[in-house]
Formats: sequence, C-alpha cells, structure tokens
Amino acid sequence: MVDNIAAKKRIRQLKDKLQQSGIDAALLFQARDIFYYANTSQPSALLIPADSPPTLFVRRALDFVRNETTISDIVDGGSLVLIKNRLYDYGIKKGTLGIEKDVISAGLYEKILESFTSFEFSDISSEILKQRMIKDEHEIELIEHACTIFEQEHRTVLEYLRPGVTELEISAEILRTVRRNGSDEVVFRRNLGTPFPLSGVLVSGANTDKISGLAMTVTGVGTGPALPWGSSDRKIEKGDMVIFDTGPNYSGYQADCARTYSVGKPNFELKEKFKLLSELYFYIIDGIRPGQITGDIFKRAGDMARKMRMDQFFQGHGNQRGTYIGHGVGLEIDEMPYIFLNDRETLVENMVFTIEPKFMIPGWGAVVLEDTMLLTDKGCRILTPVEQKLFVV
Amino acid sequence: MVDNIAAKKRIRQLKDKLQQSGIDAALLFQARDIFYYANTSQPSALLIPADSPPTLFVRRALDFVRNETTISDIVDGGSLVLIKNRLYDYGIKKGTLGIEKDVISAGLYEKILESFTSFEFSDISSEILKQRMIKDEHEIELIEHACTIFEQEHRTVLEYLRPGVTELEISAEILRTVRRNGSDEVVFRRNLGTPFPLSGVLVSGANTDKISGLAMTVTGVGTGPALPWGSSDRKIEKGDMVIFDTGPNYSGYQADCARTYSVGKPNFELKEKFKLLSELYFYIIDGIRPGQITGDIFKRAGDMARKMRMDQFFQGHGNQRGTYIGHGVGLEIDEMPYIFLNDRETLVENMVFTIEPKFMIPGWGAVVLEDTMLLTDKGCRILTPVEQKLFVV
Repeated sequence: MVDNIAAKKRIRQLKDKLQQSGIDAALLFQARDIFYYANTSQPSALLIPADSPPTLFVRRALDFVRNETTISDIVDGGSLVLIKNRLYDYGIKKGTLGIEKDVISAGLYEKILESFTSFEFSDISSEILKQRMIKDEHEIELIEHACTIFEQEHRTVLEYLRPGVTELEISAEILRTVRRNGSDEVVFRRNLGTPFPLSGVLVSGANTDKISGLAMTVTGVGTGPALPWGSSDRKIEKGDMVIFDTGPNYSGYQADCARTYSVGKPNFELKEKFKLLSELYFYIIDGIRPGQITGDIFKRAGDMARKMRMDQFFQGHGNQRGTYIGHGVGLEIDEMPYIFLNDRETLVENMVFTIEPKFMIPGWGAVVLEDTMLLTDKGCRILTPVEQKLFVV
Repeated sequence: MVDNIAAKKRIRQLKDKLQQSGIDAALLFQARDIFYYANTSQPSALLIPADSPPTLFVRRALDFVRNETTISDIVDGGSLVLIKNRLYDYGIKKGTLGIEKDVISAGLYEKILESFTSFEFSDISSEILKQRMIKDEHEIELIEHACTIFEQEHRTVLEYLRPGVTELEISAEILRTVRRNGSDEVVFRRNLGTPFPLSGVLVSGANTDKISGLAMTVTGVGTGPALPWGSSDRKIEKGDMVIFDTGPNYSGYQADCARTYSVGKPNFELKEKFKLLSELYFYIIDGIRPGQITGDIFKRAGDMARKMRMDQFFQGHGNQRGTYIGHGVGLEIDEMPYIFLNDRETLVENMVFTIEPKFMIPGWGAVVLEDTMLLTDKGCRILTPVEQKLFVV
C-alpha cells in the first residue's frame, strides 16, 4: 500500500505540472490513475486543482474508500454537479480542465461538455503517464514481486509442457499458478478494447508464427474469432518450439516477461536463431544508460539485427512488424516509456520497462526473450529471476 | 461460428432500424458489436449504411479477418479518411451517423467530429443492444454450453472447499477448471473500467456481507485496493457460508450463475434464510412470461420479499441495495434486458437473462441463487445444469 507521504508527493508533482501547463484542475475518472494518486480503485472521480487540495468524489462503496484512500477530502457522490460546485468553492469558474481523453467514453465527455460550459478541456493522460514512468521504491518492489510470479509460471510450463498436451491445458495450469501466487485475475491495460489473456500467450509450433491484430508480437490464435489471442486446442508435438509471454501482477503492479522453449532436443536452426537472439538481447540491455533516447535504442537494436542478417525477421515480418523493442510497465502492462522507432523520450533512473527482441520467421516460427527491467545509474537491472536461455523439456 | 445467413439477417435488421430512425449509417468500433455483425474481433471499424452494403475497415491482421468474417467488402486500413471516402462513394456526404458513444473514447470521438464535419452523431449502442437481446438458436447453444462450464466450476468448489483453504486457493482451482473447459480468459463486459475477475467471486464468512463498488452484489474484498473484488486470502472456517458467483464464457458467449454453500452442517438461520430465498427464486421464475415488463418483475419479487419480511435485506442493504433482479447475458455478461425497478422493456421469447435474488444481512452474511435462463413461450427455461439448493461440504 502506498503511504500518505508518497501519495502527497505524487499529487504535488501533478499540481506543479498543472501550474506549468496553465491547467486549472485535473479531473480523473480512470481507476488506475485514481489508484495512483488516491490508493483506491472504487468508482469515483478525483479532482486535483492546481492550487487547492484534491477531492475524491465517491460514487459507491464509501466504506471501502474510507479505509484505504490517502485523500482526506472525500465527498459521498460523484455527480458532475457536485464536482462543479467544489470547483466554484475554490473560485475556479472558468479555465481549462485536464481530463483523460484516451479512456473516458464519448458519452461521459459529452456530459462534461454540457456541465462545464465555461471551461476548455485538455488531455491530461500523457502528463499522468509521464509521471507514472518513474517508479518509487515501493512500486519497484511490487513489480519485482510480480516478476517472481513469472518465475513460478515458467516452472509450471517446464512441468506441464510435453507432447500430447494442448496449449490450452498448459494455460489452465499457468492460471492456477499465477492466482495461487496472489496475482489479480486481470491484466491491467489502458487500451481496454483488447483484453489480454491472464495466462498470457502459451503458443507452440506453427502458432508461434501468428500475429493476431490484438498486439504486435507472437499472439497465437486463441480459441477462435471471439478472442483470437493466446492458447488454442493445438496439441504439443515433439520438436515444437514454444513461446510463453505473460503479464502477472501483484498489488496492482504488472510485470511482462517471455521465454522460448523446445520440446525435445532443439534442431540446429532453433539453436542458432536463439543464440543470435540472446546475443542481441544482451547487446541491447548492456548498451542502455540513463540519458539515452527511446527511438535511438530501437534503432541500435535494429542495426545489430541487420548485422546479424536477421533484420527481415526482427520484431515480426512483412507488414506485421512491431516498430518497438520495449515498453514501460507499472499500473498498466503497456505504458510509457515506449521504446519505439519514432519515440523521443529520454530515459532516466527508476524507469521500469521491458526489452523484448524477437525473430519471427514466416513458415518456421519464432524465438523471443523478454524481461522487465529497472534502469539504474549503471544501466539495466533485470528484475526477472529466470535465466535467458532456450529451455529444453 | 455464426453462418453467413445469420450474419446477413443481423445486418438487415440493423439497417431497417437505421432507416426507421433516419440514421444514414452506423459506424462501429467496439469488438463485441463487430463480432456480432461480422464474426471477427480483430481491430477494425464496421460501416453499415442504411441503404448500401456494409464495409469492414481492418486496421491489423487482415489474414485472420479474411478467414473468419462474414462481410464481403473488406478494406485494408481503418483510417477515418478511408471510411469517409466510402461514405462519399455511396453518396452519403452529410446526415446522421450512429456511433457507440458509451464505449468509444473521447479522443476518438473528437477525431470523428473533426473528420465528419457535415454529419451529426447519434448514440447507436442501445439499438444494437436491443437487437442483441433476442438470441438465435446458435447463440442459445453457446450460452447453454457456457452454463455447463459453470457446472464444472461448481464441482471444483465442492471438491476444494474445506476449512483451512483460502478463498484465493479455491479461486485458483476454479480458474484451472474454467480454462480447461474452453472458456476464454476474460469476462466480456461493456463497462470496461471495472474488469470482472475470471473465476468470479468465491467469498466466505464475513466477506459474504461485503459490497464493493464494482458491482451491486456480493463482491468480497479481493486482494486489496488495486482490485477490491473477488477472492481474498481469508481462510475458510468450519461453519462458514460461501457464495460463488461467476461468468464463464464459450466461443464469445457469457453465462452468469451463482450458488450458496455451507462449510459443515448449516445452522438453523442459514437453512431458514436459504429456504426463503429458494421459494422467492421459484416464485419469480414461475411467474415470468413473454409480454411482461421488466420493472414489474422486479416489483413482484420485491413484494414477495416484503411478505417474507425480508425486504430490508433483499438485493443488498442500506444505501448499497441493487434495484435489479436480473440482467441479459450474451456477448457481454451484463446487457439488455435490464430487469430493474425503473426499466420498462417488454420481455419476448428467446431473450436470455439471469434471475438472481439474494438476501444480504449486515453482520451475518448472504444467501444467493442465480441462474441464466431462456425465455420460451411457456416461460423461463433454466439453462444452468446445477440444482437450486444449499450445498453442504
């Protein structure tokens, strides 16, 4: 649980940003953002004026909220009228409100526009996500704990992966493990339209070559068109390569890690491709330092893939190539910094992000390595407590 | 998989509705709605003009889409410019577009407003949900299958529920079961801000009295403020009452069912309260017929609870009472018809909905019965293949 001092510091930082940007108040509705500033994810709205104390407007479960929130000013009810009245109390009768335009619905936005006619609206999400990029000690501990849950999941894969078992049956054992280790039963994502399967992606053989539209990575095919992502009823065969990519969480904080497996002795090509991938992985992370630019890290990785003559398979193939080599993780599995080709964020200490090189070869399959790492003054510290090797079962 | 004839019939029905409402075209972005009309949930936009054939604009994974969709006119790309050009091709240069204001983001809505300056926008979601209320044979089969997965989950509860085990450990076994039986690893919900735990709510003892803000029912407390809903680390004790309420799915279709359990011999009060609840449950479902109004069904249930002198505990207590006795299930776990106090929908054959009476007694706990049922010309047909009794383990 976040303590009062940390929560107050977070709010202070946002208020500073509001003041610098000429925004009179932030009005937040999204559960992860509210959890970050107020330590509750009960249905509520959080008003943070640039120059006045924050107020939490609680729509339901006031008894839960009172026991957990770090906000002292709590209002029973979440109507826009209540919120407007509080703004008026503080003398804020016009100006600019920062709202989360990427996640609130068009319907709610229309209601806000009708209620706050003397205000303009600015998208505050990227400012919040920029602040959330840099983790405090407590957040790092929770993410590191989530990485230990990945270790348990990986052990489950080693235990159950064998010829004759279906991808789906192994995913069921992974689900059992991830939950027994205290992960919540959802993968927290900002992009809510595409739910991420809780056991992640355990895919084998020809399915390792599949890129469904729900993520630019190895996705598998899932159970069918209702959710074409994750494990299927394909039976594992001797000689299969298998990718396991998953996002366990702990106390609200996500990790994101992946490994590659061989069912039976790997053939020459699989060993060679994995060896190259492993070299690329360490080349990338050994080169990362605070002060570097996200897009440059992607380019450096791509240059090395080219030297290895693997650039046509690097991060996908054809028109289904991801132009990223990693992404931040925290309260959501996919957040800033985005280590993308066209991104220009400067890396700083205490960012937590993935590095996830992959080679995807059409008609053959894929090799993947992904870890969650913390950026220190010395470079990347890998938080995943699992060796970066090709696992043979 | 929905066949071409069924898909074409669904689109024909929506086009009729658009024509009646003076809407020139529907422009859909939400994955469940697109799945309903196009049998794909890949990232795409579905344009259904009132007087012209539908077009699917595919943002990613065209190869997946081509193999599964029932739409013949597919465009590679999902930009608003492409969509506008197609509308112009059909001579639709101004008028009204129907969009899903309840689920698309404010950011996307702003982009749509900027791109389609000569159009007005109408919320089409409730028309789509009204159409989705009435299920065809194939949909009913899938929901009935999802109900058989509940039966397997229930057997898992009977197997693992005993003193000394935590709620969370049992939820892990339920997850394993639900997945082994082919359920996808998410609970499909329209209200995306509040993810539903996949194993549902397995809560015991004092936790059966808890109503977190994320749903107006027995919610438990979860693992903490990051997701205060579902199982916790509470250890089951002899004499506990336990509620298990969950939403498995199959091929994209949800069920929603709940049962009450006693750990060890139930005491007099639990037996009496469950007996009353069971009487209320059968009183409600025996009285339901096509042609009735949703709000009247709630009122009739409430009247009986009053006669039983249980009205102060009916569907919650204090200011945390649900004013509903059931809701539709289908592509989402909570959809129309809403059998709510203030709802005025007329029930018709082939609707599928829950009936879920509960007594929640402060400081004591709760008893719950919930089943998914199909409305036939004769009344409710219960789809859940589990007896409506108090289970003693």
